[in-house]
Amino acid sequence: MKLPKQSQNFRVPFSGKLKIGKFPTSVPGKMPDKDECEALLAASVTPLDKLQQVLYAQNKYSILCIFQAIDAAGKDSTIRAVFGKINPAGCQVHNFKQPSKEELDHDFLWRTACDLPERGRIGIYNRSYYEEVLVVRVHPEYLDAQNLPDSKADKKFWKQRMESIRDHERHLERNGTVILKFWLNISKEEQGKRLLSRLENPAKNWKFMPDDLTERKLRPQYLKAYEDVLHETSRPWAPWYAIPADNKPYMRLIVAEILVDTLEKLPLEFPKLEKKEQQAMAGYKKILESE
Amino acid sequence: MKLPKQSQNFRVPFSGKLKIGKFPTSVPGKMPDKDECEALLAASVTPLDKLQQVLYAQNKYSILCIFQAIDAAGKDSTIRAVFGKINPAGCQVHNFKQPSKEELDHDFLWRTACDLPERGRIGIYNRSYYEEVLVVRVHPEYLDAQNLPDSKADKKFWKQRMESIRDHERHLERNGTVILKFWLNISKEEQGKRLLSRLENPAKNWKFMPDDLTERKLRPQYLKAYEDVLHETSRPWAPWYAIPADNKPYMRLIVAEILVDTLEKLPLEFPKLEKKEQQAMAGYKKILESE
Repeated sequence: MKLPKQSQNFRVPFSGKLKIGKFPTSVPGKMPDKDECEALLAASVTPLDKLQQVLYAQNKYSILCIFQAIDAAGKDSTIRAVFGKINPAGCQVHNFKQPSKEELDHDFLWRTACDLPERGRIGIYNRSYYEEVLVVRVHPEYLDAQNLPDSKADKKFWKQRMESIRDHERHLERNGTVILKFWLNISKEEQGKRLLSRLENPAKNWKFMPDDLTERKLRPQYLKAYEDVLHETSRPWAPWYAIPADNKPYMRLIVAEILVDTLEKLPLEFPKLEKKEQQAMAGYKKILESE
Repeated sequence: MKLPKQSQNFRVPFSGKLKIGKFPTSVPGKMPDKDECEALLAASVTPLDKLQQVLYAQNKYSILCIFQAIDAAGKDSTIRAVFGKINPAGCQVHNFKQPSKEELDHDFLWRTACDLPERGRIGIYNRSYYEEVLVVRVHPEYLDAQNLPDSKADKKFWKQRMESIRDHERHLERNGTVILKFWLNISKEEQGKRLLSRLENPAKNWKFMPDDLTERKLRPQYLKAYEDVLHETSRPWAPWYAIPADNKPYMRLIVAEILVDTLEKLPLEFPKLEKKEQQAMAGYKKILESE
């Protein structure tokens, strides 16, 4: 079973109205089962390691993959499944949890900006500066700790944050960073099941936070925040992908395919030697051969 | 002798045409002599330490002072003279020289962004990301080392760099960073004298670079690049000040006055305690008194 390339199907439009409820949490129709998905995933990620090698040798582009989702949507396991086969030297995963005091004492893009991937590398953000227009939007009282000169959390304030994000991403794209943003879209029911399994399975207990239940009640507010984020920040230079997240194996497969598809479309190539350099290489070869 | 506040006199306009030759390298009329300037400077910087204390206690704003100039205009000595009396814990000076390999492997704002001042601090950039539209503009071959996807150094390319800078600065300003940019504008003659003194004075020899003479020949190209920079990036949220630099003591005085003037206009104040906190304070006082 071969699935079609997924990039276009799940990409959030770059303009026009957008209703968050229209994005499916599962894909209709017959789905490949878990084993099939895993086989497809394994096949799908195979080119990644090679692509990353060329990315590194060429040293022109960097890749930034951003993962955002509510709790238990599968960010961690997706990152492991999709990027686990790539040379770890070419990958940098950063988890952005509650900001430190030092981070709060800088502008809201600072902490993630310092961890941006170098050319030739794939950077992975497990949560990101988007928290600043998601969790902070749902909990505007968090702004108190940021001690901003003008922290009235009004419409203009959030518009300006979105603008800062768009400007930042456009700047990065122009300078060689390819940005991919994944929203793992899980249904309320499936989230409920996964949280329950965290309570029931001792090996998963540590992942459960009492907060998860409070946040779960705020689902409508989160969805509204996501709606604005997708609408205002899915752009050609930094597209969002809305990934149905109820079926974990399938979700990972889609993410992998979008990533591979994007890398394959980049003009990646090993650096070409100029004639002079080629001649020099021939010279070095002779020296080694005559040893 | 008391000089009028200088901020407005030297501020580069935020719109309209701009001719770089119109900016004076020295101030006409009778100038205070060296001793007078130094006395005035000492008086001028006196409030700075106190202002920085309040800045730190309030922890709301950070100050970013950017110094740009051609060689021998006096960046280092001005920084020392103006900021030397402030608590060093409240000041962070960063010199941005030739970028490292790691820095070249990131977007052109990255290395300076990581060193942005925290709230409550004064950050000083001796050279900055403006080098990317000044020295790199005069020497577009430097772009080769940046390995950009699209490094055609055409008009659009420089326009986009300017836009990135404007966007970045506006974002910082919204988030509490007060930006002041100083262009130390030295005449060709005065630069010649100072370079000569570097050759003649053994204690200054180390500051002379043979490159200085090559760059000196490129003065018209540098001035053209400065013209575009001032025109495209002097904005209300991040003004440029064009400082006549031929008279060193006077230049320092102007910079100090602009800085103090800016800080004095900020709504700086020690954090006010709420009633509850005041009551708590009274309680703590009793505990200590009854020891």
